[in-house]
Amino acid sequence: MSLLLIGMGIWGEKDISLRGLEELKGCDVVFAEQYTGSREPNSLKRLEKLAGKKIILIGREEVEGEEKILKAALSKRVALLVPGDPLISTTHISLKLSAEKRGIETSIVHSSSILTAAIGECGLQVYKLGKPCTLALWSKGYEPTSSYDVIAENRERGLHSVVFLDIKERCMEAKEALEQLLGVEKEKKRLGEFHAVVLSRVGSREQKITYGEPEALLKKQLGKPPFIIVIPGKLHFMEEEALQRFGI
Amino acid sequence: MSLLLIGMGIWGEKDISLRGLEELKGCDVVFAEQYTGSREPNSLKRLEKLAGKKIILIGREEVEGEEKILKAALSKRVALLVPGDPLISTTHISLKLSAEKRGIETSIVHSSSILTAAIGECGLQVYKLGKPCTLALWSKGYEPTSSYDVIAENRERGLHSVVFLDIKERCMEAKEALEQLLGVEKEKKRLGEFHAVVLSRVGSREQKITYGEPEALLKKQLGKPPFIIVIPGKLHFMEEEALQRFGI
Repeated sequence: MSLLLIGMGIWGEKDISLRGLEELKGCDVVFAEQYTGSREPNSLKRLEKLAGKKIILIGREEVEGEEKILKAALSKRVALLVPGDPLISTTHISLKLSAEKRGIETSIVHSSSILTAAIGECGLQVYKLGKPCTLALWSKGYEPTSSYDVIAENRERGLHSVVFLDIKERCMEAKEALEQLLGVEKEKKRLGEFHAVVLSRVGSREQKITYGEPEALLKKQLGKPPFIIVIPGKLHFMEEEALQRFGI
Repeated sequence: MSLLLIGMGIWGEKDISLRGLEELKGCDVVFAEQYTGSREPNSLKRLEKLAGKKIILIGREEVEGEEKILKAALSKRVALLVPGDPLISTTHISLKLSAEKRGIETSIVHSSSILTAAIGECGLQVYKLGKPCTLALWSKGYEPTSSYDVIAENRERGLHSVVFLDIKERCMEAKEALEQLLGVEKEKKRLGEFHAVVLSRVGSREQKITYGEPEALLKKQLGKPPFIIVIPGKLHFMEEEALQRFGI
C-alpha cells in the first residue's frame, strides 16, 4: 500500500514536524531505526506517547534487508522513522526505490538535518560548505585517510568541512577524531595549522560548541557524544566573529 | 529578554517542528520574514491559527536593520520565524550576534532545509554534495558567472551542485536558469555535456522533479516556482537509477 519515510529531526522527540506527527498517527505500522544517527536517549519512547502508536525499533540488518518493511507496506500504511532528514543515507534511498518497484506508494516527510544545523550553529555560511565526510574508528588493518583528504581539498578551495564521526560500533569521541586528524596531518601535511569546531549534542539543551587549535581542544572538556566536527575554510569577518564566541 | 529564531521548514505551515510550535506559543511577539526563502502561499496565515498568535510579517529592510527586532527582544520574549532552517542566511547570523552583544538570550529551533531535502528527493548522496550556489537574475551590466564556475569546480571533483535560484525581485524560472547556464557554457566550456535535475515546489503535494539534458528540459513542463536545480556530478549506479525515475 504505502511507505512513508519520516524524519525525526536532529535530537529530541519534538524535532519531528507537525506533518510528521500527523502522518504517523494515520499509519498502521510504525518502524523506527536509530543506527544512521544518534538521538536523545528515550526520545523514541516519548514520541510513541505523543503519537499514540506503538513504534517497532528495527536494526541495521532489518532495514538493509528491506523485506520486513516492504512486506508490511504491500498491504498496510507503513512508516519508517529515521533520524534527521530522511534519504540522507543510501539505505533509505535503496529502500524507497525497492518499494516503488513493487508498486508501493512512497512519500517523505522532511525534518531538520545535522548538516545544516551544525553549520548554522557555528555561524558559518552554508554557501561555503564543502563536501561532507565521516571519520571512521580505526582498527588494525583499517586506517582510512580519505576523509582527511576531503577536508584538505575543501580547505584548498576555502570551504568548510562538516565531519561526521563514526557511530557504527559506538559513538566516536571528539578527541579520538582530533587525534586521528593530527596523526594523518603529521604524515600528509596538507592542512598546515588549522582550527576546529567541536559540536556536542547539537539541538539539545546541553549543546556545547568549542573552537580552537586541535592541540588545545584536546586539553578541554568538549561535552558529551554525539559529536560533529567542523573544520572551517577561509573565514569572512562575520564568521570569524561568530566562531570567537566559542573560542578557548 | 530573549530572541528565538524558529525555522518554518521547507514548504507548508506543518513543516515547523513540534518544538517550534510550542516555543511560538510561549512568545510575546512573533515576527516572520519570507524573503530569504519561498514557502507555500498563505501558510503563514495558517500557522498563525495553529499557534493562536498574531504573526507580524516584516521585510528585508526591517530584518537587516535589526533595530525593530532587537528593541522588542530587550524586554520581551520575541520569535523570528524564518523559512527553512534558521542561520542559513548571513542576515540571521548577524542578527543573532547583535542580540548576544546586547545581552539578549538567543536560541534556535531547527527545521527542514531545502539543501538536504533537494539532494534527498533526487536520490543523490549527501556525501557527494559540493559547494552550493545561487543563480542571480541577470540585468544590464550585472551578469555574474561565478555560480557557473562553482558548478564546474564541483563537477571536476565529481560532486553534485545544488543551485538555488534568485528569489530577490521575483522567483527565477527554471528555464531562465537553464538558459543562463547554457549561455555561459557556450563561452567557458567547462561543463561539457551535462544533465540537470529541476525540482519544483519541493515538499509540497505538487512537487515535480524532471531530469535530463538542459536543451531537452527547456521543451518540457517543469512545474511551478519556486525551483531548485541540481547538477549531478559523478553518479553511483544507485544514484543513476534514482534519477532515471525523473528522466524525460
